[in-house]
Amino acid sequence: MRVGLLGLGTVGSGTAKILLDPAHRHPLVGQIELARVGVRSLYKPRSVAIEGDRLTTDLESIVSDPTIDVVVEVMGGLEPARSLILKAIAHSKHVVTANKAVIARYGDEIFTAANEAGIYVMLEAAVAGGIPVIQPLKQALGVNRIRAVTGIINGTTNYILTRMQREKGDFEAILADAQRLGYAEADPSADVDGLDAADKIAILASLAFGGRIKLSEVYSEGIRQVTAADIAYAERLGFVIKLLAIARRDGEFDETSDQALDQLQLRVHPTLVPVSHPLASVNDVYNAILIEGDPVGQVMFFGPGAGEGPTASAVVSDLLNLAANLRAGTTPKATNPLLACSHQHYCKVSPMADIVSRFYVRLLAEDAPGVIGKLGTCFGRHRVSLESIVQIGQHETRAEIVIVSHEVTEANFQTALDELRDYAEIHSVASVLRVL
Amino acid sequence: MRVGLLGLGTVGSGTAKILLDPAHRHPLVGQIELARVGVRSLYKPRSVAIEGDRLTTDLESIVSDPTIDVVVEVMGGLEPARSLILKAIAHSKHVVTANKAVIARYGDEIFTAANEAGIYVMLEAAVAGGIPVIQPLKQALGVNRIRAVTGIINGTTNYILTRMQREKGDFEAILADAQRLGYAEADPSADVDGLDAADKIAILASLAFGGRIKLSEVYSEGIRQVTAADIAYAERLGFVIKLLAIARRDGEFDETSDQALDQLQLRVHPTLVPVSHPLASVNDVYNAILIEGDPVGQVMFFGPGAGEGPTASAVVSDLLNLAANLRAGTTPKATNPLLACSHQHYCKVSPMADIVSRFYVRLLAEDAPGVIGKLGTCFGRHRVSLESIVQIGQHETRAEIVIVSHEVTEANFQTALDELRDYAEIHSVASVLRVL
Repeated sequence: MRVGLLGLGTVGSGTAKILLDPAHRHPLVGQIELARVGVRSLYKPRSVAIEGDRLTTDLESIVSDPTIDVVVEVMGGLEPARSLILKAIAHSKHVVTANKAVIARYGDEIFTAANEAGIYVMLEAAVAGGIPVIQPLKQALGVNRIRAVTGIINGTTNYILTRMQREKGDFEAILADAQRLGYAEADPSADVDGLDAADKIAILASLAFGGRIKLSEVYSEGIRQVTAADIAYAERLGFVIKLLAIARRDGEFDETSDQALDQLQLRVHPTLVPVSHPLASVNDVYNAILIEGDPVGQVMFFGPGAGEGPTASAVVSDLLNLAANLRAGTTPKATNPLLACSHQHYCKVSPMADIVSRFYVRLLAEDAPGVIGKLGTCFGRHRVSLESIVQIGQHETRAEIVIVSHEVTEANFQTALDELRDYAEIHSVASVLRVL
Repeated sequence: MRVGLLGLGTVGSGTAKILLDPAHRHPLVGQIELARVGVRSLYKPRSVAIEGDRLTTDLESIVSDPTIDVVVEVMGGLEPARSLILKAIAHSKHVVTANKAVIARYGDEIFTAANEAGIYVMLEAAVAGGIPVIQPLKQALGVNRIRAVTGIINGTTNYILTRMQREKGDFEAILADAQRLGYAEADPSADVDGLDAADKIAILASLAFGGRIKLSEVYSEGIRQVTAADIAYAERLGFVIKLLAIARRDGEFDETSDQALDQLQLRVHPTLVPVSHPLASVNDVYNAILIEGDPVGQVMFFGPGAGEGPTASAVVSDLLNLAANLRAGTTPKATNPLLACSHQHYCKVSPMADIVSRFYVRLLAEDAPGVIGKLGTCFGRHRVSLESIVQIGQHETRAEIVIVSHEVTEANFQTALDELRDYAEIHSVASVLRVL
């Protein structure tokens, strides 16, 4: 099997290193030939030695090369990655990609083209780096009725939140330090605003629930507003704060229908997670994905969510899978239904207003009698049942009050909160977070 | 694909329930037909309704039935399970089994027969119930050079150790309660003596390191000697005690050779695990397997290690995989090298005497000056370097001393310990445990 690699950055170099050094790995790895490598500059110093005649800056020539069987796209970015993937498919090449941004936005176009051409598009490396999660979702867990996929799938934000918790530090300072150390990008928005996690949960949801996802329907809220105070109060209440990406089936299965009720919740937001929950102890840059299904129950996958080695391991595992399947099949066409994309309809996504969850609110109010009663009355009027209202601290003449609700719809909760904001006794609603 | 099921106990019933109710699962599940079911008694009441004409007590007739494509063996026990699996293979039927005892003992015979016949033998359900770990080891992680597989793979002992820790209770009382509650068998030996975990780590090691394993070479020590006192002292030192099953490559990769240096450590024993380690927070009946490889780093799989639903999920995932591969292939013969067994040689296993690890020892000694010095001198003479010697408690006139060593060979440590046992000041060596 001859492979054309597009990109020789971190993931590309890691992929080349594995392919060029197959000893002590699965014997099939030795039969995967790194035939051509497309790069932006031929003369850049690199951590892996590729002979000059395999290197080219003409990426188009790789995706149309008749001697290439599989194209590995590890360039990142939307264009020209998307166009090159589509051209590779048009030239009957199977595709392996680590590009979550392209798949989350153009998966529809790409998988439609792939299905028509009888081509596999593999993406283990696009979500959660070295953790095998795409393949188990497609295969081992596919016999289950999946209820939910809940993940810590952005390493940068998990690193920042973990440090905020350990050091009792504030977001801005720790973000700056993470940038200095290379754990966060100069422009950190994709990570800290939850956009990267949204891309990834859209991909996981599509596989778990067997339908396509419009990325614009994934609710996404980042961690910029999480403060050291919230983390400390959460800890007192028995929680840690994690940026969770959640895809959850809304409502029960319709037993009278063959079709799954594809009504999903899709959301990324900082969340109070009980300390005893399996995701609570996932710290630093590690990722983890908890999958709940019937009858398997809860299964969790944990590991490194990024980095050269882990992501390259995922890329080459897709190549291994392709090599095994192409050898087993009669034609180079995609025929294994577990590797191909099997759905074309779109999942229905519930609006956030309808989502039921628990809330944590921290607010600053007058330190005066009757305030807590007034808060309770307002929430009660909007059918928000509370688990606790606690005056937890004081800032000069202001009382700091932390409220935890029982389950309530987002709409009712936000209406109550809007009303509270107008009360003369309420100085500010400092944070609003959801509780798992 | 027509399936013959051998056994309709817990796992068999769970398997039948999934196959008879395919809605909202992977569409291929609906194309797997539960054609025949072999049971011991036709008239036993069951939790799943199977029409009478599919049931038979003649199990031989199923494994030789020319209309059956795949035999699922979920009877348990060594015989007739082993013979029926071999007969199914002889009749060109693919096999799915949940039987770790048969695979750990007769895997050699079974896989040799399967390879000759061009038959797949699938065993996702044999280890760690619903957790997909066999398939990731065969596929996604196969591109790595695996360094170690470390697992909590026996739910009963993990349940007992977790309760001992929470309740500060002793082994015998909690075992009795676990038996009453159905978490431990009337004869608990296979679980509490580490034999079940030994079966499972032999299977995992075989897949991770690509060689066969002689079960007799797996060192196995159970949890009967773990006391509430040890758990409490371990906690003070920053550890929890877990029954770990460990398969670890001993020594470095030989870069000059194509062959992996198949020198392995294979051992099951109670172990002090640092509280910050990913396996430390795996509690109750849950299982987890930590896989370390190059370049992926550490990946962990967590979930329910037993039970009807999880184990049935694993059985049917193998069926799904078979259905997809048989449909993709040209012949009903096994052709996908990732699903077939690819090795025939045996791994070399290091004798325990050569294993290097850290030790925890608790002993009772005279409460007299000079004892600690004498202990230190004895260990030093045998080149055992100590991290700490602490007099941690007192029993009448005896001092209770806890010693933690640095890394040392098992042989040196045991020699020192044997010498200590003869000292007049040493009343008894109460516990010896290894430290991760």
